[in-house]
Amino acid sequence: MSDLVLHVGNKNYSSWSMRPWVALTAAGIPFREVLLRFDFPAGNPEIRAVSPSGKVPLLRDGELDVWESLAIIEYAADLFPDAGLWPEGRRERAVARAISSEMATGFAALRGACPMNLRLEPMTLAVQPAVLANVARIETLWADCLASSGGPYLFGAFCAADAMYAPVVSRFHTYGLPVSDTSRAYMQAVMAHPAVVEWVDAGRAEPWIVAEDELPAIPKP
Amino acid sequence: MSDLVLHVGNKNYSSWSMRPWVALTAAGIPFREVLLRFDFPAGNPEIRAVSPSGKVPLLRDGELDVWESLAIIEYAADLFPDAGLWPEGRRERAVARAISSEMATGFAALRGACPMNLRLEPMTLAVQPAVLANVARIETLWADCLASSGGPYLFGAFCAADAMYAPVVSRFHTYGLPVSDTSRAYMQAVMAHPAVVEWVDAGRAEPWIVAEDELPAIPKP
Repeated sequence: MSDLVLHVGNKNYSSWSMRPWVALTAAGIPFREVLLRFDFPAGNPEIRAVSPSGKVPLLRDGELDVWESLAIIEYAADLFPDAGLWPEGRRERAVARAISSEMATGFAALRGACPMNLRLEPMTLAVQPAVLANVARIETLWADCLASSGGPYLFGAFCAADAMYAPVVSRFHTYGLPVSDTSRAYMQAVMAHPAVVEWVDAGRAEPWIVAEDELPAIPKP
Repeated sequence: MSDLVLHVGNKNYSSWSMRPWVALTAAGIPFREVLLRFDFPAGNPEIRAVSPSGKVPLLRDGELDVWESLAIIEYAADLFPDAGLWPEGRRERAVARAISSEMATGFAALRGACPMNLRLEPMTLAVQPAVLANVARIETLWADCLASSGGPYLFGAFCAADAMYAPVVSRFHTYGLPVSDTSRAYMQAVMAHPAVVEWVDAGRAEPWIVAEDELPAIPKP
């Protein structure tokens, strides 16, 4: 019944592509993947031919195009309501959507200073206070969810909210950002999830270097 | 059955508060409103006491707090599935969520240059190319939806996607941004919707001036 095609960017760099890919894969939702490299100096003309906004990820279902990570996840949840993309309880589902939306709309300092780069060797990066404020807020969200659910994932079983934060887990890990033991245990659980492992391994194996997505020089705080 | 309390910011300025307020009001979902003024120099301590992220809007349902405009709308749609917050058709619903998410995550140039300010007399503002690019993208989204639905709203009847763009309609109107006749007709339909009229009238009647939300000096392009 499923004829879903998920268009994604380079796995090493594309945090927005990683989110729905990991969410759908972890939920066992069948889809075909098309990878559109964005390592062309002027952008990949294929991407704009496929995606109305010129962006990936994009989910195609026959004549229908769905873009934006969260909208893709919601559409998949509409198609497969029993796949567990969102928590079963209405209240947990509401919080899962709130933290997922906060991820989609916020944390600009972290996203700017610490671009996802799966292939980078872990380091300890000195970051600005604005980045640390993002880290603190994310740790609070994680701690609240984990305290309510008991873990190992934010709402017990792995769900779309964990997929939304999987690139953040990778950034915290790569750049050695200072986190609590609670966060560290959660990060290890995410990094060990088979869907995350599959994406990360594929990203690390990519040969393409995109200069603008490599770590910029960051002033010491 | 409903014990929903929606905390909003100043109606004249708070575009994020306007979105769920208009969506829920238009859908006939009962809620109580609490207005938290953010016109204190150091921020309103009441807001941080109520909202974990220090932000409004925030929907409280007993012990549950839901924040982020789209997550609030999704929670209300979960509680009131027949209220028509999202279009009935699955494909239309997917597109409605995609354009709503694009609004929530994007259009930074427009949002920065043209802050919502309901009480401002309409003017013609010269804006940068980045703002015009945002306008063009929004007009494309609107035109595509209106062509599919036949209007008068994006998906025929007024829904959450129209509420997500209602503050944009106000900005286009206030700052005299150049738009097509199709967009102009859609904007008039939105500005005439009773839920929008009610919010706008209340915002215009507020006596509070927030200097940082008043129009900044904008260089000519």
